[in-house]
Amino acid sequence: MTEQNQGAIRVTVWGENVHEGRDESVRKVYPDTMHETIAAALRDKLGQDVVVRTAWLQQDEHGLTEEVLADTDVLTWWGHAAHGDVDDAIVDRVQQHVLSGMGLIALHSAHFSKIFIKLMGTTCSLDWRAENDRELIWTVAAGHPIAQGIPHPLVIEREEMYGELFDIPQPDELVFVSSFSGGEVFRSGCCYRRGQGRVFYFRPGDQEYPTYHQPEVQQIIANAAKWAAPTSPRQLPTVHHRKNPGWFEKA
Amino acid sequence: MTEQNQGAIRVTVWGENVHEGRDESVRKVYPDTMHETIAAALRDKLGQDVVVRTAWLQQDEHGLTEEVLADTDVLTWWGHAAHGDVDDAIVDRVQQHVLSGMGLIALHSAHFSKIFIKLMGTTCSLDWRAENDRELIWTVAAGHPIAQGIPHPLVIEREEMYGELFDIPQPDELVFVSSFSGGEVFRSGCCYRRGQGRVFYFRPGDQEYPTYHQPEVQQIIANAAKWAAPTSPRQLPTVHHRKNPGWFEKA
Amino acid sequence: MTEQNQGAIRVTVWGENVHEGRDESVRKVYPDTMHETIAAALRDKLGQDVVVRTAWLQQDEHGLTEEVLADTDVLTWWGHAAHGDVDDAIVDRVQQHVLSGMGLIALHSAHFSKIFIKLMGTTCSLDWRAENDRELIWTVAAGHPIAQGIPHPLVIEREEMYGELFDIPQPDELVFVSSFSGGEVFRSGCCYRRGQGRVFYFRPGDQEYPTYHQPEVQQIIANAAKWAAPTSPRQLPTVHHRKNPGWFEKA
Amino acid sequence: MTEQNQGAIRVTVWGENVHEGRDESVRKVYPDTMHETIAAALRDKLGQDVVVRTAWLQQDEHGLTEEVLADTDVLTWWGHAAHGDVDDAIVDRVQQHVLSGMGLIALHSAHFSKIFIKLMGTTCSLDWRAENDRELIWTVAAGHPIAQGIPHPLVIEREEMYGELFDIPQPDELVFVSSFSGGEVFRSGCCYRRGQGRVFYFRPGDQEYPTYHQPEVQQIIANAAKWAAPTSPRQLPTVHHRKNPGWFEKA
Repeated sequence: MTEQNQGAIRVTVWGENVHEGRDESVRKVYPDTMHETIAAALRDKLGQDVVVRTAWLQQDEHGLTEEVLADTDVLTWWGHAAHGDVDDAIVDRVQQHVLSGMGLIALHSAHFSKIFIKLMGTTCSLDWRAENDRELIWTVAAGHPIAQGIPHPLVIEREEMYGELFDIPQPDELVFVSSFSGGEVFRSGCCYRRGQGRVFYFRPGDQEYPTYHQPEVQQIIANAAKWAAPTSPRQLPTVHHRKNPGWFEKA
Repeated sequence: MTEQNQGAIRVTVWGENVHEGRDESVRKVYPDTMHETIAAALRDKLGQDVVVRTAWLQQDEHGLTEEVLADTDVLTWWGHAAHGDVDDAIVDRVQQHVLSGMGLIALHSAHFSKIFIKLMGTTCSLDWRAENDRELIWTVAAGHPIAQGIPHPLVIEREEMYGELFDIPQPDELVFVSSFSGGEVFRSGCCYRRGQGRVFYFRPGDQEYPTYHQPEVQQIIANAAKWAAPTSPRQLPTVHHRKNPGWFEKA
Repeated sequence: MTEQNQGAIRVTVWGENVHEGRDESVRKVYPDTMHETIAAALRDKLGQDVVVRTAWLQQDEHGLTEEVLADTDVLTWWGHAAHGDVDDAIVDRVQQHVLSGMGLIALHSAHFSKIFIKLMGTTCSLDWRAENDRELIWTVAAGHPIAQGIPHPLVIEREEMYGELFDIPQPDELVFVSSFSGGEVFRSGCCYRRGQGRVFYFRPGDQEYPTYHQPEVQQIIANAAKWAAPTSPRQLPTVHHRKNPGWFEKA
Repeated sequence: MTEQNQGAIRVTVWGENVHEGRDESVRKVYPDTMHETIAAALRDKLGQDVVVRTAWLQQDEHGLTEEVLADTDVLTWWGHAAHGDVDDAIVDRVQQHVLSGMGLIALHSAHFSKIFIKLMGTTCSLDWRAENDRELIWTVAAGHPIAQGIPHPLVIEREEMYGELFDIPQPDELVFVSSFSGGEVFRSGCCYRRGQGRVFYFRPGDQEYPTYHQPEVQQIIANAAKWAAPTSPRQLPTVHHRKNPGWFEKA
């Protein structure tokens, strides 16, 4: 996979791929599926700096075999209608890889994915409304690499609304806050470290709206992929029995 | 001061007291001055749990003598038109008390006060507009004591707008986020620890609007006073030359 | 339970209660069991401010029925040898109560309890050695209520060593850091908010050492109980479908 | 400066350069001065990825003219004996550049430099002892880029001791914690964001010890330089009067 692009970030774009199959409205917005749209966007934005593949729910092991994950620097996750269909063993496997250093970008309704809830430890619940709200995304972390080149605010003309209270641990870094035409606010770009891995939650992307076709949204996901890529060798934190090395002793 | 109310929180409400003297519009909204309005609100909300005094810019030493500060658990600060007239020596004195454990509640345009900038280390700049925006204040920290009993959202019908990017260090705890009728957002309730002291920044309260008459706003300031009160004896962190106590030794 | 002590903090001290039954060495240190020792310490330190009960693994539902948890402000948890014997359904129940506002104090080897791992989302692994190390516990959060009245450092003459890297999310507040006679360090007092609840991890307390008989250790657990007690009504964060209230509209 | 190394990080290594002139003991350890030693180490570790210059107290404007700072991505700062001799106007200038995006690495006794205190807002006081302690530096942030390739622990055979309580704001990310032969601990690698800039405090480096000759210490400073380099165009956060763009309106 990496022959042509030494040093490129290896991204696997995971899609639930349910709405695309059953909802005509979604097929119209995303004729190539949501995951292929996101994958194409990353290739477009990052060029030689990235190698992108896709995987989806209906594949064997949801396309997330040990081999695929070991060959993935950053995994993006979009799910909504079928969180419950994701195999717990695969969720555990993904978590092990995140804690070992693989980056994870949780997109929109992935706030309720098993993997995100498992990494957060909270309910991850929120308020919502699907009525063509306008969303404004404001940068609140000056100079953060994920916000690089993004307008202030970024305007998404039509989106589902997600509102506070978003039941997540306080982010290690809060990058974006959204407001909606109903006046609601939402912490829409949230950075976490978990184990050796980095996790970024990014709010926009309901299946009924063309959000992932919007260049600035694509740019944020590309920026996040660069931010989330590991800088150290992958390694799961484990227990060690440590002998006293004898540097110091009780006096 | 504390004879009648053993264990009461001793609050000093500091007011710049400039607009009240020169602007008819402000006098109409705050005929008793802004600081007396805030002081009365704290007495009303906290009853026997608080002892409140006021101090203002035009007093000797701005009313913030060593004796007053030593007898103050929590200081609230409102300033806007005359930040530059505050004596640097008094600012240093207030900072020493905050770092020793005195709580500080910085209100609205106090984001540009010398004391707040000094404690933050950043420009504390922001975007603004004074055109009767409606402000919605949303709680983003579930169960935080400063948000206790506050509606979600708290609606302020008319206020000045403050928008991001608010150039502050990332808050230790972010409690409130506001949105405005122009679609802007703002981190409007921010908790910090500095030295032994706790600092809370609370956004609303432009002099032209009756914000400090609003019971929910008063409740937040009362909650914050309880949160910011010291729980340990006051003590300024200082350098100590520490002898090796001989617990451990180099082997 | 609360008739006699209006406003008292209701603490449930949970013990695994396995070592006490099978290990003569532990019975000698804790003839009344570890959980009864901790419970007595809390009663001693907090007096009328607390009502304490105990519960343990071998009871029906591990003593943690819905009724008990609903009547508990703060739950302390000690486990080591039998983490796997704790029923997943009970763990889920405890988690729901924490996210609703119940405080949780995870003690020592509870770093590997199901409930702590579930709330953290990481492996919670660490380094260790059980060879009578001396532990020094240093306060790094000036003026924090959990450190109130605690010597700097607090010296524990003999303890198991826990060393970094401790695989936890970065604490919302880091209160204590320990060093050991082997030169290792450990983040030994860690505060988190999860949902509406507060979580405190406190390192010392291996079953082979008399740590929970030491007054300063007891004081820290008492301080933590006060810190972790909820200040708002208990409520699990949940999803709400929010109608547009019409404050603002798309122009 | 950047002709030969397009994309290289431009580092300015600033030295107080007082001990080197007056203390024979320091000259023996650092015959080329401390700042030239650090500069050479960065060139050695980062090669083509860096362009390094030096500046020092005794130069005009301490060598930190507007031109130099505008051409600097990351500034490292070592000072100890002459903090008071640094011109306040230069400190303000450096602060403006940090808040605009220039990285700052504060080394050892720079905890008491005017620039570090100004960015922190606290006393930055600590405990100390200069008696050839052994220091162990432990990584507590798994997979952090500043810790990449660093042994766990990193052992420094002889150093001055710095102990808690270190009066700093809680770091945005805590990377390293040290222990000393006297049993003391210290948060020895601390990351902050201030404005658009990144600040890293790194503890070791007393003038009497050969710390900056140690390859692992050099590697940490090199890692920090990469971490602290700006990723966005330099820009000082400033106040903007924002007109209502008319996206939303009060209903």
